[in-house]
Amino acid sequence: MEIKYMQRALELAAKGIGYTNPNPLVGAVIVKHGKIIGEGYHEVCGSNHAEVNAFKNATEDVSDATMYVTLEPCSHYGKTPPCANAIVEKGIKKVVVGLKDPNPLVAGKGIQILKDNNIGVITGVLEEEGRKLNEIFLKYITTKKPFCILKTAMTLDGKIAAYTGDSKWITNELSRKHVHQLRHRVSGIMVGIGTILADDPLLTTRLDTGNGSDPTRIIVDSSLRIPLEAKVLHVESKAKTIVATTELADKDKIKALEDMRVEVIITPLKNNRVDLSYLMKALGERGIDSVLLEGGSELNYSAIEEEIVDKVNAFIAPKIIGGREAKTPIGGTGKAVMSEAVSIEKLQIHSFGDDVMLEGYIKRK
Amino acid sequence: MEIKYMQRALELAAKGIGYTNPNPLVGAVIVKHGKIIGEGYHEVCGSNHAEVNAFKNATEDVSDATMYVTLEPCSHYGKTPPCANAIVEKGIKKVVVGLKDPNPLVAGKGIQILKDNNIGVITGVLEEEGRKLNEIFLKYITTKKPFCILKTAMTLDGKIAAYTGDSKWITNELSRKHVHQLRHRVSGIMVGIGTILADDPLLTTRLDTGNGSDPTRIIVDSSLRIPLEAKVLHVESKAKTIVATTELADKDKIKALEDMRVEVIITPLKNNRVDLSYLMKALGERGIDSVLLEGGSELNYSAIEEEIVDKVNAFIAPKIIGGREAKTPIGGTGKAVMSEAVSIEKLQIHSFGDDVMLEGYIKRK
Repeated sequence: MEIKYMQRALELAAKGIGYTNPNPLVGAVIVKHGKIIGEGYHEVCGSNHAEVNAFKNATEDVSDATMYVTLEPCSHYGKTPPCANAIVEKGIKKVVVGLKDPNPLVAGKGIQILKDNNIGVITGVLEEEGRKLNEIFLKYITTKKPFCILKTAMTLDGKIAAYTGDSKWITNELSRKHVHQLRHRVSGIMVGIGTILADDPLLTTRLDTGNGSDPTRIIVDSSLRIPLEAKVLHVESKAKTIVATTELADKDKIKALEDMRVEVIITPLKNNRVDLSYLMKALGERGIDSVLLEGGSELNYSAIEEEIVDKVNAFIAPKIIGGREAKTPIGGTGKAVMSEAVSIEKLQIHSFGDDVMLEGYIKRK
Repeated sequence: MEIKYMQRALELAAKGIGYTNPNPLVGAVIVKHGKIIGEGYHEVCGSNHAEVNAFKNATEDVSDATMYVTLEPCSHYGKTPPCANAIVEKGIKKVVVGLKDPNPLVAGKGIQILKDNNIGVITGVLEEEGRKLNEIFLKYITTKKPFCILKTAMTLDGKIAAYTGDSKWITNELSRKHVHQLRHRVSGIMVGIGTILADDPLLTTRLDTGNGSDPTRIIVDSSLRIPLEAKVLHVESKAKTIVATTELADKDKIKALEDMRVEVIITPLKNNRVDLSYLMKALGERGIDSVLLEGGSELNYSAIEEEIVDKVNAFIAPKIIGGREAKTPIGGTGKAVMSEAVSIEKLQIHSFGDDVMLEGYIKRK
């Protein structure tokens, strides 16, 4: 067993970012006599699994070879036949697995098939890396709710805009490009009606390469104030737009939106607003495995309070704007004392030119 | 010439941090036949210069040796005789200098004395490092105004306290220890009256080793609201307390403070408050070469607006507190548009446990 082959399998898996949702990212490498003889990854949802692609791309006979695969081979008939069986049929001698299948219904069954057929199995190789790469899949497969990334951008003195509301631009071009990578990666992007009214954004993915995938646009709009001419309702995109509202919404306006092929989700009232926990469940039911939350202060605080956020990507630009009335990334009522603050753990520091991005996970109590 | 000896000289120089103000930090290393035969540094203001200590500590005859010194040897009679002359007398063959003396009145004269005596001189070795180590001295010697470090501490969502004002604690113990290192390093610590009224702090240096030097405590208190029983007026410390106020102050209270051996500086009114630029000049005249500004939102904004700040040390704790009414590090009116934000340059990222500290310099237009 050599770590470098699992590293390569993880590299391959990452090539599927943005295309496989709600499936996991998986990479596979076939090694024989110390040489890679086949590589593959899960390229897009609905297509071949990584193992099958590795077999297809093999340049030599794979019998008696070792396969490195980032996720436990599947044991069930889905859109494709079970990979564990294919591995047995091809005569693979040993399988090195990164992560066991986290789905409690199937976990271990793929490995069992291999073992039952006298294939040597090693598990847990670069498991942490594999877990991080598939954090979206891991949450979604176990909870059926989307993995939510809260993205904020502030000055070094904690402001998301000047007191006038001007916010163009806080972060630099490299940071803003990275945000489009994040949009490409996720299935949904969520903002509040305040952002629509203030900025009239498109909420699409714009990569330099041009071929990013747009996330489903989700607008949280408790009393349905969205103007029918808002750009987000008319953008040309394969992804659709969802407006989440409540019983406070005007029925005729709901009809008008639906006529424009906008899906309207009506949630119960929570503090007189959209119930975000209910919404996340509804989005999960629609196959949305991940949401990038680019909200304003108020929506962000509700999201933190309702505990829908999993991860934070906080961009910090090296500039000072001042202003006691200027808004900060997270508003709302706030916690009363510092000891009640929500902790962020596993902090990582990233640089985008002169901007810094702090990435971490919400610590659950 | 070997870089490693200058690195060693810089290391030695740094040992004087907190003790030499308003003198520079200087280290010297004497090398002969590829071996260090003497080391010294400027240990405390008023005592021997680095070169003299290196000679004193030499274990061999220093004639024909090379001296590495982080700052150009002095050429004037101050509290001690000129080091350039001592170097000539000792028969040193070559001198490697980090930084030229920045004082425009003396710059180059020390080097000239060496050259006139046929000593080889190399300058500018690890100059950037030497400049950073002596950034306080460099500002003070050329402007007679203190180098001002703005220290802020906020949550990942930009707050310096909960909406209730509770701020214990935002940063972790390692960060707070580092702040005491900063206090040890500077000659003055400045806060606003709001901080005195809210927290009643001591503003002393508390190092684990116990022997830190307290900075002069400077309270900005435009209408002299400070209670005569405030701890900062009664702390046992070699350093004194200065209260900066304006004509708005009650004359009897000024007298009461002076009777307590507190110095009261009366500045002109600027926007109905203490004129900070005037104050910095007054502090410089009193030998204060550096000020650590640990102000609240309002004082910090005035300091930024009046352009007295040179460097920012922004601590960021991985926690979220929320609160649209919670205070941020820099308040005041604020700039109206993002394009007018004050830029921070030469950003460096430091870690203190899970806290991050972003350090940078105010970019002058």
